[in-house]
Amino acid sequence: MDHERLQRQLTFILEADKLKGVIRRTFVPGQDRYENSAEHSWQVALMACILAEHAQQPVDACKVMKMMLVHDLVEIDAGDTYVYDASANTDKAEREQKAADRLFGLLPEDQAQELRALWEEFEERSTMEARFARSLDRLMPMLHNYHTQGRSWLEHGINREQVEKTNAIMQEGSAILWDYAKALIDSAVRENFLHP
Amino acid sequence: MDHERLQRQLTFILEADKLKGVIRRTFVPGQDRYENSAEHSWQVALMACILAEHAQQPVDACKVMKMMLVHDLVEIDAGDTYVYDASANTDKAEREQKAADRLFGLLPEDQAQELRALWEEFEERSTMEARFARSLDRLMPMLHNYHTQGRSWLEHGINREQVEKTNAIMQEGSAILWDYAKALIDSAVRENFLHP
Repeated sequence: MDHERLQRQLTFILEADKLKGVIRRTFVPGQDRYENSAEHSWQVALMACILAEHAQQPVDACKVMKMMLVHDLVEIDAGDTYVYDASANTDKAEREQKAADRLFGLLPEDQAQELRALWEEFEERSTMEARFARSLDRLMPMLHNYHTQGRSWLEHGINREQVEKTNAIMQEGSAILWDYAKALIDSAVRENFLHP
Repeated sequence: MDHERLQRQLTFILEADKLKGVIRRTFVPGQDRYENSAEHSWQVALMACILAEHAQQPVDACKVMKMMLVHDLVEIDAGDTYVYDASANTDKAEREQKAADRLFGLLPEDQAQELRALWEEFEERSTMEARFARSLDRLMPMLHNYHTQGRSWLEHGINREQVEKTNAIMQEGSAILWDYAKALIDSAVRENFLHP
């Protein structure tokens, strides 16, 4: 047994604990608190497993699941960047690359390469799996916003155009889910959960 | 597009939010709070993806990952049962079966059957994947206890024999991980993180 290999794997898994302390801007429905990125990663991985049939073209659902499990790990060092915060998004890529070097670098070389490549694929949206994964990552906060009466949208003064522009990328991954999201936006504006 | 099908899938995913409110007895290292079952589910799914090579016999890592994503969902209705609480464990099975009926029943029939079967497999430890999944589910809280100076073990007055008896089941899934866990227990006793 290669103890050094197992130790590196467990070091990575324990380092991953820190994702539970990265706070997002969306509220957990039914709880008066923001969601953290570990919980979010679980929920979008679960989505991948259940919604894969709605991808624009057939996807390897297992690969999407895995992608979702690791897609936010870089936030441990780089923090969560709010999708509607244009200034924080300018140096996001650089901060996240540095974080990826350190975090995936904790793993044995072969696994570091595999998971890093999966994360890069997600970031670059270079495959159907990555485009679909992005759609799920965008749909979930919209569902959360809607089901908390637009709480985060209203607190941050977000309007309909911002939501539509920022999330239109969803259609690359799933026209069906984007159609659903558009109907949700319409309803959110009608219900005053989102500024027109 | 079958809107009823998508709506059932999303209803399930939103119901799953409640797992973020199910509190476990282990502390999150570096944070002064208990862990919730959604975060835990994410971390053990990540473990499945990284540690699959240590399973006693070869496993379908994707299936283990999926199993980990859903293995605690029944806690939404049945609550988290502390592994060292013998009395709460007597009616656990009954409470969880009822919860599984309701929760998986939210999904379209085919997916309800698939995920329910996966959960039953995990509970019954009827396959190598399920036995390995159980090993991960047992290893993670031991790691957390160790890396929080035995906080939860000490608060609940747990001793070495209890930890060894309760977790020996790990060896069915991975002798390597059980060996690691035994060394961790030895060290925990030496460090006074665990009563002898």
